[in-house]
Amino acid sequence: MAKGAKKSKIIHEKEGVTTPNFISKKVAQSIQQHRGTKVSAKTLAAKILKGNRTALSQGITLIESTAQKHQQEGEHLIEACLPSANKSIRIGITGVPGVGKSSFIECLGTLLTGLGKKVAILAVDPSSTVSKGSILGDKTRMASLVTNRNAYIRPSASGNSLGGVARKTREAIILCEAAGFDTIIIETVGVGQSETAVHSMTDFFLLLKLAGAGDELQGIKRGIMEMADAIAINKADGENVKAAKLAKAEFNRALHLYPPKDNGWVPKTVVCSALENQGIEEIWELVSNYISEAKNTNYFQNKRNKQNKFWLLQTIDEQLKRNFYENDAVKEALTLQTKLVEAGKITPFKAAENLLAFI
Amino acid sequence: MAKGAKKSKIIHEKEGVTTPNFISKKVAQSIQQHRGTKVSAKTLAAKILKGNRTALSQGITLIESTAQKHQQEGEHLIEACLPSANKSIRIGITGVPGVGKSSFIECLGTLLTGLGKKVAILAVDPSSTVSKGSILGDKTRMASLVTNRNAYIRPSASGNSLGGVARKTREAIILCEAAGFDTIIIETVGVGQSETAVHSMTDFFLLLKLAGAGDELQGIKRGIMEMADAIAINKADGENVKAAKLAKAEFNRALHLYPPKDNGWVPKTVVCSALENQGIEEIWELVSNYISEAKNTNYFQNKRNKQNKFWLLQTIDEQLKRNFYENDAVKEALTLQTKLVEAGKITPFKAAENLLAFI
Repeated sequence: MAKGAKKSKIIHEKEGVTTPNFISKKVAQSIQQHRGTKVSAKTLAAKILKGNRTALSQGITLIESTAQKHQQEGEHLIEACLPSANKSIRIGITGVPGVGKSSFIECLGTLLTGLGKKVAILAVDPSSTVSKGSILGDKTRMASLVTNRNAYIRPSASGNSLGGVARKTREAIILCEAAGFDTIIIETVGVGQSETAVHSMTDFFLLLKLAGAGDELQGIKRGIMEMADAIAINKADGENVKAAKLAKAEFNRALHLYPPKDNGWVPKTVVCSALENQGIEEIWELVSNYISEAKNTNYFQNKRNKQNKFWLLQTIDEQLKRNFYENDAVKEALTLQTKLVEAGKITPFKAAENLLAFI
Repeated sequence: MAKGAKKSKIIHEKEGVTTPNFISKKVAQSIQQHRGTKVSAKTLAAKILKGNRTALSQGITLIESTAQKHQQEGEHLIEACLPSANKSIRIGITGVPGVGKSSFIECLGTLLTGLGKKVAILAVDPSSTVSKGSILGDKTRMASLVTNRNAYIRPSASGNSLGGVARKTREAIILCEAAGFDTIIIETVGVGQSETAVHSMTDFFLLLKLAGAGDELQGIKRGIMEMADAIAINKADGENVKAAKLAKAEFNRALHLYPPKDNGWVPKTVVCSALENQGIEEIWELVSNYISEAKNTNYFQNKRNKQNKFWLLQTIDEQLKRNFYENDAVKEALTLQTKLVEAGKITPFKAAENLLAFI
């Protein structure tokens, strides 16, 4: 498909199940309060390194701020926290609305804190400008985790560009790691390029699916299956168990169609039920084994290096394009050149040359 | 996979079958001769529009030339030919070495000229800098077509960038169309981004495959299956017939895993034998039906418009990056900034900012 072609949400697990479009007032107020607080990056960093959760929230708010005066402070904060970062395991979790991400993360997070881990949960949500924070917006959906001292839940960062959202999330990861969180879960929803972003900042990428009415393999979003390190078929409970097991076989078959990953890993499919708290331990075992092996073979560090390089190039690319397309002369000429191409008067290559002459 | 990660040829239909790495001396000489010939763009265009094949070859050589003095002449030539272009059907054909692309194209081309069509065959070959023109380099592999007055075969354009190769090929298409060729076949080989390029300049994209030893679904190159409008399993002859039919069923199953195309088209799988000239007519019927329907629904023109837009944006993107990375200050700083990121001293986002400050 040509670049620039319409992108739409291709998968819908269940018709009629929509993501709640409210945001917790408490969270909103808390963010607003933090925005008003003036703390120096140095003080904030010191507190974050001691594991102070309020400071962590303030820090994330600072780096999320688009105000110019906050940006330098934010950079200082990141610099101060970076040496203590990079020590966690980062897990990406994706799935369409209705698949049960919140309940799943609640189960997984509870399991992990029970194992003595400190778990931070973040979200990348490109749709939040429309839905006002559609994922993790309401912490009450994770009732048990939200009161757990070893878990930290942060409502979603949003933004207009892949790089913009990614930067905020990546910086939030750094702050969480500096605050002592050793397991970072990053949730996203099947919209736009958010999966690509989350996949490119995590060590393990888990796709949540539902067993549908025989159509569980229809409408696999382009590229998502390829990115998954594992697929968990959720809601395998009650009358759904049989369908989930069938779906597992189908997905396993589908996963084998792809070439193995760089490290030779063949993605696995598991069934689970967040409702009945079944299969979650199995998934964690899978993730742990994957990570251990990746660390033994150095694949873990190599992948993180590659991800850093990806974000370096991605950020440059995005900024170069922004500078170009926001140039007034280019903006004006673009309309005319596009028309000339559409009318078959000039080739797109010539039009590109004409436009590039403006800078 | 992170951008910039190693790209390698993932599919190998048959171990040990390599593409011939020689180029026809006759063709090479003819190209050299043409390069020496000085003809004005205007004269050349007039001849091309009359269907003069020598002029067509000279024209393609002119637009392929990297010499500055030829570039403006090339542009004038394209301008003069553009109004007569865009009237053909463009078919992309891909498949790994050994799959029998040349024989297949020989059969298809012969069928089409027999139906009164004028067929031009071009190639996009990003590997040709290494293999010195690995595809279509030896016209003798298409012995019948090469002497056919209604067929025109042009050895592969090569270049260092997707945009560069694509531009030359797209311009060659324009010249062929202006010369009266109504069916353009563009061949490519499963390397790098060549499929993306060919897919983005053709109306129908055909993937050639072989029935292997039960592993025909292994190692599908990322994204290729998704781009295909049809898969033809070649060499379905002799003892291979049964395996080819099994492979057909398997591929059909796999193709159904993808969401339907924008126009609702579900890709088809067919078996064929270029050796026995079997199944080629069936494939052409498939292509013709697809094109008729696409034209009826306006999808045909919409897709071409999208492709033009893709190449416009792609060319700008490529050029912006080239300007940036070829900047001496950037080049020098890139090494240091990359090291700082690798050492965990700064984030990739900060490194990008530091680098962007140089322009």
